[in-house]
Amino acid sequence: MASTNRERPIGVFDSGVGGLTVLHELLVSLPGEDFLYLGDTARFPYGDKTPAQLRAYAAEIAEHLLAAGAKLLVVACGSATAAALPHLRARLAADGGGADVLGVIAPAAELARDASRSGRIGLLATPATVASGAFADALAAAGGSEAGGVPANGAGPGVELTAVACPDLAPIIQSGFPFDERVVDTVRRYVAPLRDAQVDTVILGSTHYPLVAPMLQRMLGRGVTLVSSGAGVVRAVERALAARDLLRDDQTAEGAYRFHCTGDVEAFRALGTRFLQMPLGDVEHVTLTPLEVAA
Amino acid sequence: MASTNRERPIGVFDSGVGGLTVLHELLVSLPGEDFLYLGDTARFPYGDKTPAQLRAYAAEIAEHLLAAGAKLLVVACGSATAAALPHLRARLAADGGGADVLGVIAPAAELARDASRSGRIGLLATPATVASGAFADALAAAGGSEAGGVPANGAGPGVELTAVACPDLAPIIQSGFPFDERVVDTVRRYVAPLRDAQVDTVILGSTHYPLVAPMLQRMLGRGVTLVSSGAGVVRAVERALAARDLLRDDQTAEGAYRFHCTGDVEAFRALGTRFLQMPLGDVEHVTLTPLEVAA
Repeated sequence: MASTNRERPIGVFDSGVGGLTVLHELLVSLPGEDFLYLGDTARFPYGDKTPAQLRAYAAEIAEHLLAAGAKLLVVACGSATAAALPHLRARLAADGGGADVLGVIAPAAELARDASRSGRIGLLATPATVASGAFADALAAAGGSEAGGVPANGAGPGVELTAVACPDLAPIIQSGFPFDERVVDTVRRYVAPLRDAQVDTVILGSTHYPLVAPMLQRMLGRGVTLVSSGAGVVRAVERALAARDLLRDDQTAEGAYRFHCTGDVEAFRALGTRFLQMPLGDVEHVTLTPLEVAA
Repeated sequence: MASTNRERPIGVFDSGVGGLTVLHELLVSLPGEDFLYLGDTARFPYGDKTPAQLRAYAAEIAEHLLAAGAKLLVVACGSATAAALPHLRARLAADGGGADVLGVIAPAAELARDASRSGRIGLLATPATVASGAFADALAAAGGSEAGGVPANGAGPGVELTAVACPDLAPIIQSGFPFDERVVDTVRRYVAPLRDAQVDTVILGSTHYPLVAPMLQRMLGRGVTLVSSGAGVVRAVERALAARDLLRDDQTAEGAYRFHCTGDVEAFRALGTRFLQMPLGDVEHVTLTPLEVAA
């Protein structure tokens, strides 16, 4: 494998700034890699889109990132992972020699299975993700919980999944979330069924949600473990790159990062800088090429 | 003990918004308690003040919080803890029946000793805190590291402490930290000696610093554990209240919180709301009564 292939960037995308929570974890573990992040803010939020729409969006973005040289794609968005990951994987495989593509749902499900002692697991996610049942499937695939627990919701033996659709939460975060009483009341309403179900682990099913982890932790209390996708995705990315000999040689160097955005550039830069705690530098506005995708 | 005593608030103070990182941990673990937080923003930063000044400030604030009914005081500030904790404790004990007062340095030192495998521990703190040697003393008092390590810096057997004074870091955070290149360069300069010393654990010696934990973690890498005071302080607070039968009976209820501030109220409210991820409600401007304190 030529070293020029190793030096290509890792492509990461989300509907907005939420995927930056995944990019952050990747930057901590793989500082020597280059990254190209795309925020599809013109079509935010993804949580109320149909599976067919999300598959089309994901395919367009994948084309864009691969054309820009990405050596691996990370779908840093729960809704897009739930709707489009298998299709995207099949599409890239059919292209021949295509890049790997990784999602955020299986890694979070595995972390949640490991973290839960009671088997009572909560999920906060977009309506699209909850409707897909992707987390219940991933929890079942992640294997049985040692602690036992009550089977329910098709989540496999030993796990009782309480899923809450949160239509307003990603939009609140994407808007820069003023923490007023209205926002707190909205979030408290989403959290209430998880408290009633006495879950001991909560999956943050949208990559936006880690940005309000302090508020969620306060509402859920010390005894509840919050699980996000970031750390799990890092391990999957490391494995996928190593398997194809695509890891850069020097991970102690400081790689470059670039940002593409389909919507307002200044809004993305302001919010992204604040959430990622680093200057984003130039954010480039891009227009995606529409694709025909089977529903 | 009358239940009215249990229902008094816990008093927490800092030079600014940094102590809100400690308040957050207290709210997660003790949601049923009432809190009164004072930010001495008129005299921020504390990191460049003399020990005598900090002892005077701490005594004035303690008087204020006790007059407001506080049943326990938490010095949620590294600089004030380093300079004033023993004096404050002696002063309150001399008052007779005075409230307990807890600081943030010993809890963080204990967490760092537990977290470090190599014994090479880093410290980022204000000039006042580094000059006090309080963390080196607390690490020594926290007992030997199982892993061994090289004795140095008076930190006791088994620990090699690399301390970095960060005069600009708390002010950057208190100003709402625009994450521009200048800020990143400043922080990278503080972190460089810790990377050179190959520490595996870094104590965030100011309660402001957890607010930039993502940036620090990215600069230090996945293998370095960041230790802040919050979690350790919670355990100390629970123990201190239980010992005096001062814990409220119902910790599942939602307690009240109030904020006092010696400087600009609107700036405190804006920054505090953003960092604490909850509406602060009314922030009351207060003027402290100067006290004579022996140097």
